[in-house]
Amino acid sequence: MADKKIILTGDRPTGPLHLGHYLGSLENRVTLQDDYNQFILIADLQALTDNVDNPQKVHDNVLQVALDYLSVGIDPKKSTIFIQSMIPEIAELTIYYLNLVTVNRLRRNPTVKNEIQQKGFGENVSAGFLMYPVSQAADITVVKAELVPVGIDQLPMIEQTNEIVRAFNRTYKTDALVEAKPLLSKVSKLPGIDGKAKMSKSLGNAIYLSDSADLIAKKVMKMYTDPAHVHVQDPGRIEGNVVFAYLDIFDPDKEEVQKLKEQYQKGGLGDVVLKKRLITILNDFLTPIRKKRKELEQDPKYIMDVLFEGTFKTQEVAQKTIAQVKQAMKLIYK
Amino acid sequence: MADKKIILTGDRPTGPLHLGHYLGSLENRVTLQDDYNQFILIADLQALTDNVDNPQKVHDNVLQVALDYLSVGIDPKKSTIFIQSMIPEIAELTIYYLNLVTVNRLRRNPTVKNEIQQKGFGENVSAGFLMYPVSQAADITVVKAELVPVGIDQLPMIEQTNEIVRAFNRTYKTDALVEAKPLLSKVSKLPGIDGKAKMSKSLGNAIYLSDSADLIAKKVMKMYTDPAHVHVQDPGRIEGNVVFAYLDIFDPDKEEVQKLKEQYQKGGLGDVVLKKRLITILNDFLTPIRKKRKELEQDPKYIMDVLFEGTFKTQEVAQKTIAQVKQAMKLIYK
Repeated sequence: MADKKIILTGDRPTGPLHLGHYLGSLENRVTLQDDYNQFILIADLQALTDNVDNPQKVHDNVLQVALDYLSVGIDPKKSTIFIQSMIPEIAELTIYYLNLVTVNRLRRNPTVKNEIQQKGFGENVSAGFLMYPVSQAADITVVKAELVPVGIDQLPMIEQTNEIVRAFNRTYKTDALVEAKPLLSKVSKLPGIDGKAKMSKSLGNAIYLSDSADLIAKKVMKMYTDPAHVHVQDPGRIEGNVVFAYLDIFDPDKEEVQKLKEQYQKGGLGDVVLKKRLITILNDFLTPIRKKRKELEQDPKYIMDVLFEGTFKTQEVAQKTIAQVKQAMKLIYK
Repeated sequence: MADKKIILTGDRPTGPLHLGHYLGSLENRVTLQDDYNQFILIADLQALTDNVDNPQKVHDNVLQVALDYLSVGIDPKKSTIFIQSMIPEIAELTIYYLNLVTVNRLRRNPTVKNEIQQKGFGENVSAGFLMYPVSQAADITVVKAELVPVGIDQLPMIEQTNEIVRAFNRTYKTDALVEAKPLLSKVSKLPGIDGKAKMSKSLGNAIYLSDSADLIAKKVMKMYTDPAHVHVQDPGRIEGNVVFAYLDIFDPDKEEVQKLKEQYQKGGLGDVVLKKRLITILNDFLTPIRKKRKELEQDPKYIMDVLFEGTFKTQEVAQKTIAQVKQAMKLIYK
């Protein structure tokens, strides 16, 4: 383990994970855990920054997200899953780092700027939300992560982290902190079932890993296809057709998909036929995950044990980091 | 102890304490420790917010400030002296509270606004400096302080703390946090030796509790009096005359001071005579403090033991507070 590079990744426990999460990160983590020392953060504190009024939701989703992790094959023997709020060293590092970042720098962070606009916070943005990139820098550096899997839109976060790392090491004449490299995730092309570009809980267009077979059938039957494709014999459009987007990704028989596309464009292939095919394929994919999840749900104590074990392991790492950091800051008293 | 009200007070360890500190707070603390459960915070982390480049100074002054405390009669059996950076719960509370305060609210804090201007931070104010009132709210609430001795200029800090307390208790439907009342300190009228209104380390016009008898003689001989009072026989002014300001405070013989004032105003009383009187009086006052300090300096291990014991006691209190706070925020996992 010691020779493996350290990865930090994670999720905000604000809802169950969906197919977009699977393709965007979970699948990748299952692969990465064999070759890396992978820490997976369940960011309950970060989830609270914009869910102040709903702590119960955040609380409950910690277990749900962990269930999703284990169901898709994240192996607690290979990956270290931990709960953010149980690592006080992250809060301590955040406080130390806040002295090294100007308020203006935080305001200029493109990701945060964008999110403030999207969420309509305007001038009433909370201090906690504005400084969450600093808190993320603490998440990353507390385990001395060398790699952080991110989407291209999150690159400014890594940049901010490394600015802090350099400022800290320079200011306190140390090499206690380690810069992180982004591990660019392939961008998931999976649209929402409504045809919107992004699958997301808030848009209500997601297929969850924990959805029942019935629910999946219902969601697929509602999928956006080609509104001009009214009769079976009409020619249909492939572009923007969600069913084909999913078949492209999940159907193992690429040749058959190609044939279906041609037939659809010519006319003579109905949406219902395609949708039934997709339902079968999605269920083939999700059934083992769902089955694993059902088993694990029987034993929530085991899940919590996994979380506590991962958290304790992370605490040990965090304690080493904070000791070095405090040494550099002359905060060790004897 | 349990029935006594809880007080939080403290200092930033950025330099030795001076006569202004004595009159403004230390004297008061020596009295308060008999009737209150008094916590005294050595705010090393807060000191770092504007001493990022000089952690060694902050480190060294932790011991010096503790020496000052014990020298003036703060009794570790009655008061709990603790080191801020050794209470991670303060960092945790700060992070939680940041979600409950807007950036704009922090910018409007009159004390912070004033200090940003004074220190010339302008638009480059660090996030750590801007949010230090939130960190102070954490200092106060982590020990559930009911009273905080403050100068009138610090009232906005108590206001900010209580806003956070109310927002927290309302948001998380709890009574875990306690509002603090200001205990208004009498304003110290002690000017600097240069006649400037405020004695301060940065103005270089302070008499320190740890100054030697020689240094005190030197500082008093340099004291600002009445620049128009050139010859002994000239009439002199009392107003703005630093020597009389000090005699008013420290000379136990008020009647004699009154006589000297009259003689000075009439003419025929030299500055040197007055200054020699003040040197004697200040040394009478400071000699026991200096003697106690010299003794304590021989045993730095004892001072550190006092600090660690106070810090451990505070940790126990802090752990109880954070457990209640986390319970309210649904951050306890089982």
